[in-house]
This record gives sequence, C-alpha cells and structure tokens, in this order.
Amino acid sequence: MTKHNIAISVGDLNGVGIEIALKAHEEVSKLCNPIYCISSEMLSQATKLLHAKTPNDINLHPVNGEFNIEAGKVSSASGKYSYDSFMSGIKLCEDKKADAVVTMPIHKEAWMLAGLEYKGHTDLLRQYFDRDAIMMLGCEKMFVALFTEHIPLKEVAASIQYVKLKQFFIDLHNSIGDAKVAVLGLNPHAGDNGVLGNEELRITKAIKSANKKLGFEQFIGPIVPDVAFTPHARKNYKYFVAMYHDQGLAPLKALYFDESINVSLNLPIIRTSVDHGTAFDIAYKGEAKTLSYINAVKSAISFI
Amino acid sequence: MTKHNIAISVGDLNGVGIEIALKAHEEVSKLCNPIYCISSEMLSQATKLLHAKTPNDINLHPVNGEFNIEAGKVSSASGKYSYDSFMSGIKLCEDKKADAVVTMPIHKEAWMLAGLEYKGHTDLLRQYFDRDAIMMLGCEKMFVALFTEHIPLKEVAASIQYVKLKQFFIDLHNSIGDAKVAVLGLNPHAGDNGVLGNEELRITKAIKSANKKLGFEQFIGPIVPDVAFTPHARKNYKYFVAMYHDQGLAPLKALYFDESINVSLNLPIIRTSVDHGTAFDIAYKGEAKTLSYINAVKSAISFI
Repeated sequence: MTKHNIAISVGDLNGVGIEIALKAHEEVSKLCNPIYCISSEMLSQATKLLHAKTPNDINLHPVNGEFNIEAGKVSSASGKYSYDSFMSGIKLCEDKKADAVVTMPIHKEAWMLAGLEYKGHTDLLRQYFDRDAIMMLGCEKMFVALFTEHIPLKEVAASIQYVKLKQFFIDLHNSIGDAKVAVLGLNPHAGDNGVLGNEELRITKAIKSANKKLGFEQFIGPIVPDVAFTPHARKNYKYFVAMYHDQGLAPLKALYFDESINVSLNLPIIRTSVDHGTAFDIAYKGEAKTLSYINAVKSAISFI
Repeated sequence: MTKHNIAISVGDLNGVGIEIALKAHEEVSKLCNPIYCISSEMLSQATKLLHAKTPNDINLHPVNGEFNIEAGKVSSASGKYSYDSFMSGIKLCEDKKADAVVTMPIHKEAWMLAGLEYKGHTDLLRQYFDRDAIMMLGCEKMFVALFTEHIPLKEVAASIQYVKLKQFFIDLHNSIGDAKVAVLGLNPHAGDNGVLGNEELRITKAIKSANKKLGFEQFIGPIVPDVAFTPHARKNYKYFVAMYHDQGLAPLKALYFDESINVSLNLPIIRTSVDHGTAFDIAYKGEAKTLSYINAVKSAISFI
C-alpha cells in the first residue's frame, strides 16, 4: 500500500510540538510520509535544545522567518512562525502535494501578539475556505462534534437554530458517512418535556428534518445530556453531537484525555490535530507525550 | 459498634425501588438497621410480584394508602404513596428514631398526578426545612456539588451571583469539612480572560471571599470545565463544585454511573439517595442493580 503524504504543521516552536514530532518521527514514518513545515535552521535550533539529532530521513518543507526559540515564552515571532507553518501545510494540501495536514498546538496569545485575530486553527480554516467547518474531537472509541464552540455559555441557547442545526447534521453526514449519531439535548433532563427549557423542540425538528432528507434515521435524540455518555449509552454510539463546548468535551476528556484528537470536517482539505495545548510549562523538558499526535496522524489517514 | 437506624423511603412502588431494597436487604442489614417505610400489605404485594419471600427480620414503619401495584405505570396512587413513604422517613429522622433517610427513586409525573408540585426529593426538603439544601452526587472517588440544578441552561449564567455563591461555599464547607474543592468556571476555557464570558470574575470573587472567611484556601478555581475531570486533575481533588447540572453530572456519570449516589447537604437531617430513576422499563423483572443503593446506605452512615 502506498503511504500518504501528510503535512505536519509544527505549531508554536516555544512549546512542545516539535519535541513530540521528533519523538514520534520513526513511528509516524511507518504510517505515512510526513512533510514537516519548518526550515532546517529552525529545526536544528530545536534539536539542539532537545539534545537530539535531526533524523536522516526527514522531509522538510521550508518556512521562512528565523527567530530564537525560547522555551515557554509567548512571542510574536513564534506566533507568526506557527501561522506560516500551518498555512504552508494547507497549501501543500491544496496543491495535492499532501493528502492531509496534522497540526501541533499554536498559542492564541502569541497569534494575537503577531496580529493574527483568529480564535484558532478551526476559525482560520473557516475563514480561509469560507466554509462552515465542523470541529470534532475524540478517538477511535468516541467522537464528539460541537454545534457551538468558543462562545460564552449564556449565548448558547439562542444559538440553537433549526435551519443551522439541520444543515450541521447534513454536513456531518457528508463527512462521516452513515454511522448512527447521538444528538444531545440542551437542558437538564433534555428539558423534561419543556419544564426545564424548550430548545429541545428545535433540536427535535432539525433531527427529523435531516433524517427525512437523508432517507434514514441517522440522527437520534435529543438525548438527556448526563445520560448520553454513560457506559451503557456509549455502547450504542461512536458519534455524538454536543450543543456546546463543555457538554461534549468535559465527558470526552474525563474518559479519553491522552488519546483524543481534533479533526476539522466539512472542508476541502483534511486536517487533524493533537487535542492539547502548547504546554509551555514542560516545553523542551523531554516530558511531552506522543499518543495524541500519533492518533491524529492515524485519524488523518482514516479520513483520506 | 452499634449499628445506626436508617429509614428507607421505598420510592415509587411501580418502579425498581422495592426490588432493590429486598435484594440488598441482607447486605444492608450488616451495615445498619434498616427501617422500611411501607405497610406489610404493600410489601407483600411487591414480594408476590417479585416471586420473593418477605425476609423474617424485616422492620417496617407502616405507611397508609393501599393500591394495586402495576409495574411501570405512572399513577397518582403510587406517586402519593412514594411521597408518604418519604415523609415518614423524614419524620423518623426528626423524631430521632432514625439517623438518616435513604431514598429510592420517585417519579415526578406521578407526583404531579398526585398534586405534588415538588421537582423532586431535594426540592421538597428545601421547602420543608426552609433551608438551602445542597445537592451533591458522586461516590467515594469523586463528588460533585451543584450550584444550580433543575433550571433551563439559558438561565444559568444570570444565576451565578457572588453573594449566593459565597454562601454556597460556606454551607458546603460546613457539610463536608476541610477537604480541598475544585470549583469549575462557567464558560469554555473558563472564559479565556473574558473573551468567552465574564462570569468567572464573580466566581473568583466568591472563592476568594469564602476562603478569606474560612481562613484557608479550601476552594480552588475557577478551573477550566473540560480540564477539571481529566484523570490528572482528578488526582488532586475528590470534591468539585459545578455551576450547572450537566457540567458536573455528564462527566460523573460517564465515569461512575453505576456506583454514584445523591446526598442532600446543609439540612437538619441526613438524606442520601440512589442516583438513578424508577426504571419503569425493567420494574419487577429482576434486572435492577443494587450497587448505587448500597453505596447510598454507606454514604448515609459516613455522613452521620
């Protein structure tokens, strides 16, 4: 079987990304042909700091803009470089030189210092492609797609709109295929027949309408949110739709913190990511774990 | 060691409560002296339906109001009986004839049919004692106290009020002692320094003020909600405060569904409960599990 080319966006070089990429290089090279979006100068700075050697078989796609790596520092230069590395990865995909891009974590404040106003990778992808990217997190055992993401909790209820939610279901179907999906309600006890909120009426309408359009019962719910992730319920579903960030991610991270990854769906390219931050506190200390990254590479391959 | 007297409120007799009580009677009798709040007539109806025998050593505190048990049926008579059983248990505690009451699940619709307008046991206790009862759920490994409970999600943000939250912390301290408590933020990423909501400012103020009054740092936070229940974070805390129902209960039930119990704190009496419903679909089928009930009895004893 031919191995796929996967672009690796190295993330904020003052954080743990490059250490993880180097640690996992041998294993990842068995799964795919990784193309690291970094210049040889920046890579050699990083390997020196890590007291490591640059692997002989490493394939680089150079990114301009040298600066001094400072472990754990929020810096404009490092923010800009992580952005450029990501954009190079996207372009490799658009030019069909890579089949997917896997991203290491960026630091939002560093992006702000660099004048980059995006809330993160997914937000950038959404604007760049002008498409409603879907943010999904998880691992082989369980994936959670988020209907709303980085908005204050008080704005969530008003964001549960029928037309948008129905389209979200259709887009999700187009990305993941026919697997059954558990759709969570919004309120405690999924509203208890309206006593504890009535947004479930809109959720029900969107589910029914999406299923009708698809011609089969793919989306099931609204399910009582604190029951959806019990061991029994998880036996019945691999895919879940959460109405808001913590509704899906708190249970996911309680169960599968180390192994989870992040995937952007409904886009012209495939992008997966580690499900952790830059971990500035342990940068260049040799402590970073590779499991989430390796799973991100595996997931990227599975979505190609 | 003298065994404590524990009143057992039998819950909705059309559900699984009485089956669980009978199944666990032998084991529970080793832990305490259970006093079942049910008449011998109703108990014998239940044992017949279960093809079981009434244990010889069973201690009943009769409750009036006979009716025909119908497995899985929402009925006014059964709702009224479960209410009367619970009230008998409370009175046994008030009269010092019992040291705690452990409750089997009631059915809210059955209570409504019976003209009982309470949202559940905790709500009834709050009104009966005119005290701000605290609802806490969990097991030996992890307990979650809920700052808001059965309200629509859209009302949660406005309910995060400094004075009330501070008092909640003090009341919780008075109930559980000096153990460290992780307090969750409200918004994704705990608001990300105000970018995703600012209720964390009020939470921070309440934490600081409560700790100052207590004279030590008992309450820690606000913690990022989807990080609070990761395996690493759980190593540091046994007690958590969630700002709303599903924020705490979805992760708890994902991790410890079968073993969790419910305890009402900040009241003149001790009350614990199973953490499941009436399970009408499996009533009188011999399938109900006893672990949550046995843990509820153990917890009640631990809080005496």
